[in-house]
Amino acid sequence: MFVYADNAATTSVSKTALNAMMPYLTEQYGNPSSLYAFGQKAKEGLEAARKTVAECINAEPREIYFTSGGSEADNQAIVSAAKAGARKGKRHLISTAFEHHAVLHTLKKLEKEGFEVTLLDVHEDGVVRLEDLEAAIREDTALVTIMFANNEIGTIQPVKEIGALCREKGIPFHTDAVQAAGHLPIDVKDMNIDMLSMSGHKFHAPKGVGVLYAKRNMPLFNIIEGGAQERGKRAGTENMAGIVALAAALKESCDNMEANNARIIPMRDKLFAELGKIPHSKINGSLEHHVPGTVNMCFEGIEGESLLLMLDMKGICASSGSACTSGSLDPSHVLLSIGLPHEVAHGSLRLSIGEYNTMEEIDHIIATVPQVVEYLRNMSPVWDELEKGLRPHLI
Amino acid sequence: MFVYADNAATTSVSKTALNAMMPYLTEQYGNPSSLYAFGQKAKEGLEAARKTVAECINAEPREIYFTSGGSEADNQAIVSAAKAGARKGKRHLISTAFEHHAVLHTLKKLEKEGFEVTLLDVHEDGVVRLEDLEAAIREDTALVTIMFANNEIGTIQPVKEIGALCREKGIPFHTDAVQAAGHLPIDVKDMNIDMLSMSGHKFHAPKGVGVLYAKRNMPLFNIIEGGAQERGKRAGTENMAGIVALAAALKESCDNMEANNARIIPMRDKLFAELGKIPHSKINGSLEHHVPGTVNMCFEGIEGESLLLMLDMKGICASSGSACTSGSLDPSHVLLSIGLPHEVAHGSLRLSIGEYNTMEEIDHIIATVPQVVEYLRNMSPVWDELEKGLRPHLI
Repeated sequence: MFVYADNAATTSVSKTALNAMMPYLTEQYGNPSSLYAFGQKAKEGLEAARKTVAECINAEPREIYFTSGGSEADNQAIVSAAKAGARKGKRHLISTAFEHHAVLHTLKKLEKEGFEVTLLDVHEDGVVRLEDLEAAIREDTALVTIMFANNEIGTIQPVKEIGALCREKGIPFHTDAVQAAGHLPIDVKDMNIDMLSMSGHKFHAPKGVGVLYAKRNMPLFNIIEGGAQERGKRAGTENMAGIVALAAALKESCDNMEANNARIIPMRDKLFAELGKIPHSKINGSLEHHVPGTVNMCFEGIEGESLLLMLDMKGICASSGSACTSGSLDPSHVLLSIGLPHEVAHGSLRLSIGEYNTMEEIDHIIATVPQVVEYLRNMSPVWDELEKGLRPHLI
Repeated sequence: MFVYADNAATTSVSKTALNAMMPYLTEQYGNPSSLYAFGQKAKEGLEAARKTVAECINAEPREIYFTSGGSEADNQAIVSAAKAGARKGKRHLISTAFEHHAVLHTLKKLEKEGFEVTLLDVHEDGVVRLEDLEAAIREDTALVTIMFANNEIGTIQPVKEIGALCREKGIPFHTDAVQAAGHLPIDVKDMNIDMLSMSGHKFHAPKGVGVLYAKRNMPLFNIIEGGAQERGKRAGTENMAGIVALAAALKESCDNMEANNARIIPMRDKLFAELGKIPHSKINGSLEHHVPGTVNMCFEGIEGESLLLMLDMKGICASSGSACTSGSLDPSHVLLSIGLPHEVAHGSLRLSIGEYNTMEEIDHIIATVPQVVEYLRNMSPVWDELEKGLRPHLI
């Protein structure tokens, strides 16, 4: 049995998305910037996609900018707010310790350029506290960027409350919604979101296309200079096939969100319930504020990487954290941010379930993971020491 | 008859490219950063594509970075060389007056940051002179960036000689090869090219994917920060379908380059010969140093935009210049750079022919353009004045 349980890393392209893009990979190859009817037809497709995306998050079409993905959108949002802030003497940026690296590394670069960054604690449950944010806000705060839902542990942040507080204080609020778009309801007006990033391949569009939503009055600076595409804010001939696929996939995901989540949540909860029975295991992140599909757990005494390789041999695709940092020997910064000791963070497993998974697949995971954990523990000198009481159990 | 004669703006996706990408839009949806076999299979596809692209330009695979397009590649190359130069106190950049806006606007941004930019004259024939470059080079020159072939008038620059001079002087040389890749032989070693940009959709790959070649020792700075993709130099989950399509399309274009050009050049030359018979017309750019497919002409007394719209009604897709700046009322900066007066530059037509065009289509263009030019001149008050001798003919 092959079980793809890494939907937070990437998803398959849906039939709807593929059907939407095929004309642009065949007969509809016009450049949307071209004057003639054949180009203008592509332009119509582009603008229809923009309208669809806008509707899915209650934005205006002109507030939607297509990018090459979530990372580019994050970079542009943060750099833009920082530059705009600096022009008013504001050089303080607020974020959290467990953002995606597209956010954290951009903040690090800005720090080197003289900005000051405050990373909020996300506590043991992986949820930002509003009072922490309020305490961190300064006169010179140029931006608050807090992710909608965490990519590794799946905890949802109080976005609407953060948005209201930022609006009250007059501070731009950006949210990396890469793990939320298509999976959780997003209303940028109701939630007072000024900028938002999403990535198509997390909701069944192809890889390499994303969206930056930026409220009308938000100053945007190009990170790619050149032609006048995307209202002059993002140069480069548009990824037409990717863009129309993204719009179709987002609409499909939003239209079916309730039904999808009604299927996904019981699968996720069964994983929590059954895998939670493994001794000296720990479920990471608040269960109260949790995306439908993500399960993140630690198993004491084992290495996450060995666990993944063993699961792979049993046909299960899973991860220990973000795919973007796989290959790194450091434990996940997300797991460290919620207070896990290094040894525990090393033994992590992320299973992320989508609407294409079945309960049969979940049962295969549930039958397999405990066996593999036991097998690895039997070979583990650390587990041996834990069992003999030579070192204390941490979970 | 429908005649697509705007291949310099964009091209159709070839069957080869489409076939290469389809697996990645269907069953092969793994994330190449994932550890499990399903992800590693995507990684293999990614690295095979990298090797293919490298072979096409005589580079090493590790010198190939996939981007979202030519504009991003141009931006990253130029910003990287500028930053690296600045660290050594070198803040002078050399380019030409008729680069693509992805280059010119990036240079403009750097100028605002304190860099000094010298734009070389491209003379009436649209070809940079080596002695001009040599005269412009200074002790503090951090980069020479000169396009391989111009996107509007199709003139080829003496890239190999420029590369040799830059290498001799120890100055990094970048070339925007967006109009050359797949159409002209490129050998980065023989031509001493340090950095090179290309864009897939100019050679029958889909829109939204490009390549930055950067020689091993060239310092690269990210313009998109985040995950460790592309050797840490370009963050974001890879556009797998686009990347494998780009590689397949580039290989096909390079493998068939001679045969394609043997078909294209006679079509181009027939356009030059026949349309050149129109009175008070002018062929733009050296015919000696010219890409196979591009024809750029001016017709006195008419507006290029009207010409395009009329040709569109006759089923002919053409442009007046770069698609990236269409909609702008300013005359082409390229045509101004080769010394054309504003009035003449306004009446421009670019026809760009590809290997999918036929001589029958060329004949349709040849039958149509003179009629349309005459029709527009008959309605033109400017032409009337020219004919009455109230204003002098400029061409």
